[in-house]
Amino acid sequence: MDFLKLIEKRRSANNFIKDVKITESDLKSIFDDVKFAPSAFNLQHAHYYNVINEEKKEQIREAAFGQYKIHSASAVIIVTGDRYAYRQTECLNKGMHDLGIITEIELQNIVTENTDFYVSRGEEFMKEEAIRNGSLSGMMFMLAAKNRGWDTCPMIGFDQEKVREILNIPTDQEIVMMITIGKEKESSSRLRGYRKPVDEFVTVIN
Amino acid sequence: MDFLKLIEKRRSANNFIKDVKITESDLKSIFDDVKFAPSAFNLQHAHYYNVINEEKKEQIREAAFGQYKIHSASAVIIVTGDRYAYRQTECLNKGMHDLGIITEIELQNIVTENTDFYVSRGEEFMKEEAIRNGSLSGMMFMLAAKNRGWDTCPMIGFDQEKVREILNIPTDQEIVMMITIGKEKESSSRLRGYRKPVDEFVTVIN
Repeated sequence: MDFLKLIEKRRSANNFIKDVKITESDLKSIFDDVKFAPSAFNLQHAHYYNVINEEKKEQIREAAFGQYKIHSASAVIIVTGDRYAYRQTECLNKGMHDLGIITEIELQNIVTENTDFYVSRGEEFMKEEAIRNGSLSGMMFMLAAKNRGWDTCPMIGFDQEKVREILNIPTDQEIVMMITIGKEKESSSRLRGYRKPVDEFVTVIN
Repeated sequence: MDFLKLIEKRRSANNFIKDVKITESDLKSIFDDVKFAPSAFNLQHAHYYNVINEEKKEQIREAAFGQYKIHSASAVIIVTGDRYAYRQTECLNKGMHDLGIITEIELQNIVTENTDFYVSRGEEFMKEEAIRNGSLSGMMFMLAAKNRGWDTCPMIGFDQEKVREILNIPTDQEIVMMITIGKEKESSSRLRGYRKPVDEFVTVIN
């Protein structure tokens, strides 16, 4: 779909048509697009927990104060970000080394640089990086989903620790957001929310 | 441009062609698209400081450890997020009230709900929300820019407090990321970084 049409069509779904199934193959197609999202130092911090299982989905719904949208969604997705993604530097760059694009010394320099970058900035920064890079990826997910015919809604009103427990999410993974996905029940659709005019959120220094 | 083509073409630029000018009108077109990004409770946390002025741009470059890319970029943009965006609830929803879509009581309920939501979760959560929603918007910006022929690079290696000082960014605004924008110098272009296969960043619970 054309990008301008896509961003106009993508709306946060207010409700979903019940009993619409999403398959692993549907999700795979979306994630093949999500891969193109950028991340700091290409560390690919984001991880996605896709809950299709009805029983688990209802548990997540409870942890989200009973929100009906989770019940009617085809899946509920928890986006997380690895606070210690910098530890994957060697692993993620090994292919480039093996292909001869970078030398062993260059590889070790990248590892040292990334480690210093994160360690010197500390735990709070690592957590923020998980949220930042997970959110860049999350936006890509919502657009990629719409492009393949799926509606989504990003959500933040839920008990993070309960969700972590239900899905056994490791503590290294910072919980970034919840996204419900399905086919929007158009009769429940609302007007698009008011948007500020550009000059209210943009400052030009020239 | 078609979305799939767009996400493939969008690459983090390694360098830019020097002396390419970006106008306020070019930026305005991009931000008219960015407006469509979602935000929690439609609070539109994101704000963009666009530095076109050469002298200020060089100051930002210094605060980013001299990175050449900022020198050659047409503009350097600082994305921020309002930690206290919930205080704008009444202002942002007033139009819906004035149009008779919501009643005065409903408007006041939304104000109370949003305030409680943020205040009960506290300052750390407010900061995280600024980063999360600013990043959702930032991803939209990079895609919208590419769709209109501009290359970008998201950056995080800079001294936030120096940047805040140079641009007089209010302390309520959390600094989310830096984005350089311009026309990529293709001779400096690198291979796209390795991406993890889907099964390494996706877990399906079914």
